[in-house]
Amino acid sequence: MDSAALLDLLGNENRRRILRLLARKPCYVTEISEYLGVSPKAVIDHLRKLEEAGIVESHTDDQRRKYFHISRNLRLEVNVSPYEFGTKSAYPASRGFDITTWRYLSIDVQLDDDEEESTRELASELKELEQLENELSMAQRWVQGRITEVLDELTDEADADADSRLYADVLLALSDDPKITDAIAEDVEAPPGMVEQVLADLSENGLVERADDGWSLVD
Amino acid sequence: MDSAALLDLLGNENRRRILRLLARKPCYVTEISEYLGVSPKAVIDHLRKLEEAGIVESHTDDQRRKYFHISRNLRLEVNVSPYEFGTKSAYPASRGFDITTWRYLSIDVQLDDDEEESTRELASELKELEQLENELSMAQRWVQGRITEVLDELTDEADADADSRLYADVLLALSDDPKITDAIAEDVEAPPGMVEQVLADLSENGLVERADDGWSLVD
Repeated sequence: MDSAALLDLLGNENRRRILRLLARKPCYVTEISEYLGVSPKAVIDHLRKLEEAGIVESHTDDQRRKYFHISRNLRLEVNVSPYEFGTKSAYPASRGFDITTWRYLSIDVQLDDDEEESTRELASELKELEQLENELSMAQRWVQGRITEVLDELTDEADADADSRLYADVLLALSDDPKITDAIAEDVEAPPGMVEQVLADLSENGLVERADDGWSLVD
Repeated sequence: MDSAALLDLLGNENRRRILRLLARKPCYVTEISEYLGVSPKAVIDHLRKLEEAGIVESHTDDQRRKYFHISRNLRLEVNVSPYEFGTKSAYPASRGFDITTWRYLSIDVQLDDDEEESTRELASELKELEQLENELSMAQRWVQGRITEVLDELTDEADADADSRLYADVLLALSDDPKITDAIAEDVEAPPGMVEQVLADLSENGLVERADDGWSLVD
């Protein structure tokens, strides 16, 4: 998908709110419409545009109700400077990339602050910086892809049906120390009641357990 | 400037075209209007929005005509995934950052492809990845800032008045081998006549010289 089309799509506040909502959990049109305070017709129109762009897709649940979720990873970068207006959008790098072998990523750019650099030196530094910028971009895409994989694994472990970021966030909140429900709820910015339910599911799947000092991960 | 406001601004094709034009060289309203095929009134309206956001600013030339240019560096990143809709916008990191000492940038993330990872391991990998993502972002901003500085130095050397990316691009095109005008014009995607003029200016300032095999940088 090209950057211009993506910027056109993301230039709309309600579409951004829909994406923010779907990133927390897959939703029905009625849920989105209520949450946004926007008519179902308008929501359907936004979803159609996002679907055509391949950002969102729909599935049908057991009751044959259609629900929507974000279908893939996508990354957009915009650079604005007195010398540049650059946009770049891309799907994540495949995991096969071995980013540890990349040449520029070690950032051994020379910083000869005090020295007067010659035109040739400046030109060659510029080339290196542009190469480094590209490699950092690829590294970002790789990291994004890997984060999604880890979240897939975490939510798979949590519950086959729990296609929700909240499960992973609760596990993340517990990764250092045991915590009580209210502290977890604050960490993950969700209502304590909802977090209770997630903890019950996770506990049923043997991932967390209740201890004296709150909930903790099962090793 | 916040990401939502920036996405609203960049969601407009004509504003993107204005920024792309200004990144090549500062322009008068009439130039932008002719280039875009849009009324001066509409151009002024777009410029006002970009000015209010601090992306564009205007100066007055010797004939007291107002011209516009991009005022500063800015970077926007958008991450879309089934678990995330994240936007981040920022000004470049100051040069003082010593990015070589950053902890995660060496990307020593473990890739235990075959091993089954425990929930705790996944959660801790996720934290590292999120930290790495932040540091890569900061590195990108640092690189962008440094690129602008190098381009400033290059255009300063080229000609005090040459506030144009084209001068740097021409120097860049010559940094490896001498080249004839047509080859340079192809490299920098500008008309040969315009490149001739730039080469004449650069030659006058002692940065390039004509040799048997084309133009080359003066060492």
